Amino acid sequence: MEAIRWDAATLYLLDQTRLPAEEIWLSYTDYRAVAEAIKTMVVRGAPAIGVAAAYAYCLAARAGENLAEARETLAASRPTAVNLFWALERMASCKGDLCAEAEAIHKEDIAMCRAMGEHGAAVVPAHARILTHCNAGALATGGYGTALGVIRAAHSAGKVDMVYADETRPLLQGSRLTAYELVSDHIPTTLIADNMAASLMRAGRVDLVLVGCDRMAANGDFANKIGTYSVAVHAQHHAVAFYTVLPCSSIDLSIPDGSHIPIEERGADELRSIGRIQTAPPDVAVWNPAFDVTPHNLLTGIITEKGIIYPPFRENLGRLFGTS
Amino acid sequence: MEAIRWDAATLYLLDQTRLPAEEIWLSYTDYRAVAEAIKTMVVRGAPAIGVAAAYAYCLAARAGENLAEARETLAASRPTAVNLFWALERMASCKGDLCAEAEAIHKEDIAMCRAMGEHGAAVVPAHARILTHCNAGALATGGYGTALGVIRAAHSAGKVDMVYADETRPLLQGSRLTAYELVSDHIPTTLIADNMAASLMRAGRVDLVLVGCDRMAANGDFANKIGTYSVAVHAQHHAVAFYTVLPCSSIDLSIPDGSHIPIEERGADELRSIGRIQTAPPDVAVWNPAFDVTPHNLLTGIITEKGIIYPPFRENLGRLFGTS
Repeated sequence: MEAIRWDAATLYLLDQTRLPAEEIWLSYTDYRAVAEAIKTMVVRGAPAIGVAAAYAYCLAARAGENLAEARETLAASRPTAVNLFWALERMASCKGDLCAEAEAIHKEDIAMCRAMGEHGAAVVPAHARILTHCNAGALATGGYGTALGVIRAAHSAGKVDMVYADETRPLLQGSRLTAYELVSDHIPTTLIADNMAASLMRAGRVDLVLVGCDRMAANGDFANKIGTYSVAVHAQHHAVAFYTVLPCSSIDLSIPDGSHIPIEERGADELRSIGRIQTAPPDVAVWNPAFDVTPHNLLTGIITEKGIIYPPFRENLGRLFGTS
Repeated sequence: MEAIRWDAATLYLLDQTRLPAEEIWLSYTDYRAVAEAIKTMVVRGAPAIGVAAAYAYCLAARAGENLAEARETLAASRPTAVNLFWALERMASCKGDLCAEAEAIHKEDIAMCRAMGEHGAAVVPAHARILTHCNAGALATGGYGTALGVIRAAHSAGKVDMVYADETRPLLQGSRLTAYELVSDHIPTTLIADNMAASLMRAGRVDLVLVGCDRMAANGDFANKIGTYSVAVHAQHHAVAFYTVLPCSSIDLSIPDGSHIPIEERGADELRSIGRIQTAPPDVAVWNPAFDVTPHNLLTGIITEKGIIYPPFRENLGRLFGTS
C-alpha cells in the first residue's frame, strides 16, 4: 500500500479524504496545489507530508518558480508536524539534482519505516493485542508505516492476535485509513470508538499501545493526533506499555519540551456535521485541536529507525544525536 | 424542553434519532411499538425509558392486552438501565388507575430532577467550567434532566461559565442532544470530541464532571454511556471532581458491584457508517458496547433527589435505603 507516487514530472497523491469508499489518485504539477492538498489532508501523516513537500519543492524548481516563496508556502500548510520543515530544509540545502533528492527522501522514509518495524517488533510479545490511534501507516509515510510498520513486522513474525483501531474523531483516520490498511493486509483488526479504549484496557484486552508522532521535543514530550494523550493516560492507569514510533526526522531538538509545539486548531464544522449530515446545532461553539501533547513520563519507549530509546529520554535522545 | 407527552390515550415521543436536524413527534397507542422505540433509541436515557415503559404498560392495559406479556416485551427492549425494570415493577404492582400511576411516575421524575438540581448546584463552584458526557438532560428524563438538571440549576444561580459537551460516539448524543438542549436554553456550551476531554483537563479548563447513570450497584459502581469510564480515569489523573447524578430508582441494591450489570452491545454498523456515508471497510470487525462501568473509587460523590452521597458509598447507600 502506498499513497504517494512520482514519475519525474508529476506527483500523484491518493486522496485520503475519500477513503475507504473511493480510491482516487490526484495528480499535481503545481507546488501550490500540493500545499493545498496538505492543508486539506488529501495527504497527511508527518512523514508523508515531508515526502510530498519535497516533491512539491522539486515541482517548483522544474517550473522555474521562486524557491524561497515555494518553501514558505509549503511550510505554512500545516504547523505541527516537523518533518515538513525538515524536508524543506533538506531540499533547500541540496546542491545537486532536486528531484533525485526528493526521491531519496521518499526511499529513505520507506527504508526507515522498515527499520522501525524490525526494532519495534522486538517489544511485541507473542499473541499481542495492540491498540493504535489515528493512522501511522503506509498512508501516513512514504510507505509501510511507523506504528503500523511495527505492527506489519510483528504480524509477519506471527505475533499479532488483534489490532484495535481507535476510529479517531473527528476525521476518522482510524476507521477510514488504519482499518482499511490493516484489513487490506489481512491483519486481524477490530474497530472501536475512541471512548472505548479505556474499557478495553480495563477488560485486560490490550497488551501494548503503538502510535505515531508528529513532532517530539528534546525531552521526549511529543505531539500526535488529538486523543493520543487520552490513550496515554489510560495506558498508564491500566499499566499497559505505551510506545511511539517515529523517524529521527520527527525529533526537534530545538525545543526543550512539548509546550513549544504549535498545535493546529481546525474548523468547527468538522464536529458539527459529517458529510452533509448536521450532527450538532449549527451555532454551537467548538474546540477542535488537531493534535495533543503527551508528556514523556507516560512513554514506555521511543521506537526509531536507529533503535529503541528508553528513559531518561532527554539524555538518551541527546546521545542519539551526539549532542550530549 | 421535553421528549415525552401523554394525552390519556396516546403516548407522544420526540424522535431523538433525528435531532437536532428535525423535531418530529411520533405517536404510539401500541405498547409493542413503544418497546421498539426504546430499542431503536427514539427515546433513550434511563429515567425517560422508565417513564415511556410506564405509559406503554398503561397503553397495553387500555387495549386489554396480556399485561404479563406486555411487561416481558418492554423489559426485553434494553438490558442495562434499571429504571425500566423499576417502572414496570411499580406498574405491575399498582392496584389503582394505571394511567394515573404512569402520570405519577412521569411527574415524580421531573420533581426528582429538580431536587437533584437543587442539591447538585451546591457543589458547583462560581465560574464553573463543567464537562458532561452523553445526554443526561430533559431529553433523557421526564423533563429537566439529571446531570443537565444540576447544570440548569447552577446556571440559574449564575455559576456556570462554560459547559463542555463530549460528542459521545457512536450515536453522538452529546452533539445531537446535549448541545441542542443547552444551546436552546442559552447556556454557554462548547462541543468537543470525546478524545479531547483529557487535553482540556490538562489545560486546566475543567472544574468538575457531571454525568448521568443507567444503573448503580450497591457499592457505588455504575454503568453509564460508553466513554464515561474514560472520562472518570481522566478526571482522577487530573484531580478533577467527578459526580454522577441519578434518581434513587437507578440504584440496584440487588447487585453487589458493577460486574453484575449487563452491558448491551450494539450493531457494528454504528461504527462503520454515518447515515449513508461509509466510514470504514464494510467487513471490519467492531466492538461496540453501549455502556461501560465506572468503579466507585473514581467517584467524588453521588447526587440524588435525596441529597449527595459521599464515600464510603456502600455504607452510605445502604443508609439511604435503610438497609444498613
